[in-house]
Amino acid sequence: MAEFPFDISATDGDARTGRLQTPRGDIATPAFMPVGTAGTVKAMFLDDVRSTGTDIILGNTYHLMLRPSAERVAKLGGLHHFMGWTHPILTDSGGFQVFSLSDLRKMKEEGVEFRSHIDGSSHFLSPERSIEIQSDLLGSDIAMQLDECVANPCEYEPAKAAMLLSARWGERSKAYFGQRDRQALFGIVQGSTYADLRIESARRVVETGFDGYAIGGLAVGEGHEAMCDTISLTAPHLPVHRPRYLMGVGKPIDILEAVARGVDMFDCVLPTRSGRHGQAWTWDGAINIKNAKWAEDDTPIDPSSTCSASRDYSKAYLNHLFKAGEYLGPMLLSWHNIAFFQQMMAAMRIAIAEGRFEAFRSEMRSRWQAKSDA
Amino acid sequence: MAEFPFDISATDGDARTGRLQTPRGDIATPAFMPVGTAGTVKAMFLDDVRSTGTDIILGNTYHLMLRPSAERVAKLGGLHHFMGWTHPILTDSGGFQVFSLSDLRKMKEEGVEFRSHIDGSSHFLSPERSIEIQSDLLGSDIAMQLDECVANPCEYEPAKAAMLLSARWGERSKAYFGQRDRQALFGIVQGSTYADLRIESARRVVETGFDGYAIGGLAVGEGHEAMCDTISLTAPHLPVHRPRYLMGVGKPIDILEAVARGVDMFDCVLPTRSGRHGQAWTWDGAINIKNAKWAEDDTPIDPSSTCSASRDYSKAYLNHLFKAGEYLGPMLLSWHNIAFFQQMMAAMRIAIAEGRFEAFRSEMRSRWQAKSDA
Repeated sequence: MAEFPFDISATDGDARTGRLQTPRGDIATPAFMPVGTAGTVKAMFLDDVRSTGTDIILGNTYHLMLRPSAERVAKLGGLHHFMGWTHPILTDSGGFQVFSLSDLRKMKEEGVEFRSHIDGSSHFLSPERSIEIQSDLLGSDIAMQLDECVANPCEYEPAKAAMLLSARWGERSKAYFGQRDRQALFGIVQGSTYADLRIESARRVVETGFDGYAIGGLAVGEGHEAMCDTISLTAPHLPVHRPRYLMGVGKPIDILEAVARGVDMFDCVLPTRSGRHGQAWTWDGAINIKNAKWAEDDTPIDPSSTCSASRDYSKAYLNHLFKAGEYLGPMLLSWHNIAFFQQMMAAMRIAIAEGRFEAFRSEMRSRWQAKSDA
Repeated sequence: MAEFPFDISATDGDARTGRLQTPRGDIATPAFMPVGTAGTVKAMFLDDVRSTGTDIILGNTYHLMLRPSAERVAKLGGLHHFMGWTHPILTDSGGFQVFSLSDLRKMKEEGVEFRSHIDGSSHFLSPERSIEIQSDLLGSDIAMQLDECVANPCEYEPAKAAMLLSARWGERSKAYFGQRDRQALFGIVQGSTYADLRIESARRVVETGFDGYAIGGLAVGEGHEAMCDTISLTAPHLPVHRPRYLMGVGKPIDILEAVARGVDMFDCVLPTRSGRHGQAWTWDGAINIKNAKWAEDDTPIDPSSTCSASRDYSKAYLNHLFKAGEYLGPMLLSWHNIAFFQQMMAAMRIAIAEGRFEAFRSEMRSRWQAKSDA
C-alpha cells in the first residue's frame, strides 16, 4: 500500500474534482485513461497522447504477459522504459481478458489456468502472479487486484460466488503486494447489478483496505440505466477520500453520469477503437466519417479544438482516407477522439470547480441524446 | 513551360548538387521525393515528413483520379489544400499504374482505356487528360508527360514502339500544357535497355523541350548493372542545366550510383513500403526488425539520428510492435526510413559540395554491399 495523496479540491453534488499524486506525476480527476493494450496506445505517438492532456494510461496485463511476456518487459527495463512513457501507468489484473479473450481452461480457488488466444500456450494467473507481473515485472504505478468479472445479466448465485471469490482474491492480492513506497494497489467491487451483493462487496473490499477502489463488472451488458443505478448504490459505500475508478467505461454520456455519481477515474478502448473504424466523438455526438455526406465537406471536425487532428484536416479528407484504407485515417481519428475525451474531462473538472456541473451535465445530456449519425 | 530556375552550385565528377526553385519552395538536389500515393505518405503525418528534410513529395495520378477523383480534389481546393501539404508536389502521369495495376482494356494512339482495380469502372487517360488532371485539377507543381513504360527485359521492336509512342505523347502533353507561370512539365526518356533507343528518345524529348527530363522505364526488371549502364548512356544526352529525374528508384545503392551519373531527383515507395513490412534502412544496410535477434535489444536503430523514430525507440520495442501487428510499428519505421533516405541525400549533397563524393560513394558501396539481414 502506498496511499498516494488524493486531494479533492471541489465537490458539486456527488461529483468531485481533485488530484491524485503519484511519484511519476499528478493525475487531475475526474481522469480518463487511454488504453495502451500491448504497450502502445493504438495508432498514436505517445507525444500526441500526452499533448491531449493525458496524465495516465492503462496497460493490459493479459496482452503483455503473453507478448512480449512480463519477464521480457522486466529485462528491458519495465513497461515505462519499454514503451517510452514517463508518466503514470495503471495496469489491469489480466482477469477480464482471460475471461473474455482466452481459451479458458480451469477456474480454481487458487487462480485461473488458460490458453493464450495468440498461440495456444498455457498460462496460470493467480492473485499473487498478477501482482508479480504488474508491480514487480511491468512496474506499473497502480496495480489492480485479480477479480472475477461476470457478464450481465447474471443469475444471483453465480454473481455472488464471483463477488466472494473476488473478495478473497483481493485479500491475497493485498498480502502479496505488501508495503510499497512508489506503487499503489486498487481493490475491485463486484456483484453484478444486485444491490445487496454490491454493498457486501464494497464492505469487504473496504475492510481489506486499498489505495483506491474500482467498480468492476459494469459496461458488460447491463445497459446505461442499470449501470447508473449500480454506481449510485455502490459509491456511498466507498471511502470519500480515496479515488474511485469505474473500469472499462465508456461512452461520453456514461462517463458524465458516473462523474455525477462521484467517480474519479475511467478507462475505455472506445475513443481509439471507434476512431480506427471511422467514428469521431464531438460535443454534438458521434459522427461516422465514412458517411457519404462528408465526402465534399471541407470543414474540420472541430475548428475550435487545440488538437491538430481535430482542426487541421477536413472531413472530406478523412472520409477519403477511410475509404482508401489509409493508415492516416485511424491515426487521425484516434488522436482526435482521445483529445475530445480529454477536453470533455477537463470541461467536467472546470464545471465542478466552478459549481456549475449540473448545468454542464444537463447541456451535454441534451446534446448527446440528440440524433447522431454514428 | 515554367522553367523553374535550377542552379547547380557544385559538381564532382558527373554528380551535381544544386537547388530547383519553385513557387512553393526550393528543392535541394539530389532530392528524394517520398511517395504520397493516394493523398497521404502512408502511415505518416506530413509534419513528420517535412521534419525529415523533405522538400517535395509525389502524388499518384492513377490513384487520385479513381479515388476520390480529380474533380473532387479540384472542388476541395486542389491536392495541396486537400492533403495539407504546402510545399511542392510532383505528380506522375498515371500511365505506369495503368499498365501495372489496372485491368487494361485498350491501348490506342489516342490514349489508354482501362478499368479501375478498385471498382471496375471505365476510365480513359490521354496525354491531354493526364495533364488536365495533374495541372488543372490536382494542381501539382511538376507534372509528368504520359508515356508507355515496358517491363524489362523487352524485345527491341515493342521497346521501340513504346518509345516512339511516348515521344508523340510527350509532344501532345506539351501542347496541352502550354505556358504556365507556376507549374512545370517534365518529359520522359524511354527505350528499355537499348542504347540507340535511349539516345533517340533523349534526342526527341529534348527537341520537344521540357522543364526537366526524366529517365523512365528503369527499376522494372533489368537489374542494378543494366540500370546503371542505361543511366550512363542516357544522361549525357540530356541538357546539363535542367533537372534529371530517375523515376521509381530506388534502393540506397541505386540512388548513390545514379547520383554519381548526374541524376538530380528520385522517388520510390521503398522506404514507406518496406517500413510497413518491418525493414529498416541504415548506414550499415537494411535490417529486418522482425528478426528474433532484436527481441531483447534495448538499443535504438540509430542513436545518432535527429529523427525521433530512429533514436527514441528500442529495436526490442519495434520487434514487439511488428509481432503484435500494431499500427505504431509501420508508423515508426516509415518515419525512420524516410528520415534515413533524406539524411543520405543530405550527405550526398554535402559530399558533392565538398568535392569528396567519390570517397563517400566508395565507403557506402562497401557498407551496403556487405551482408545485411533484411
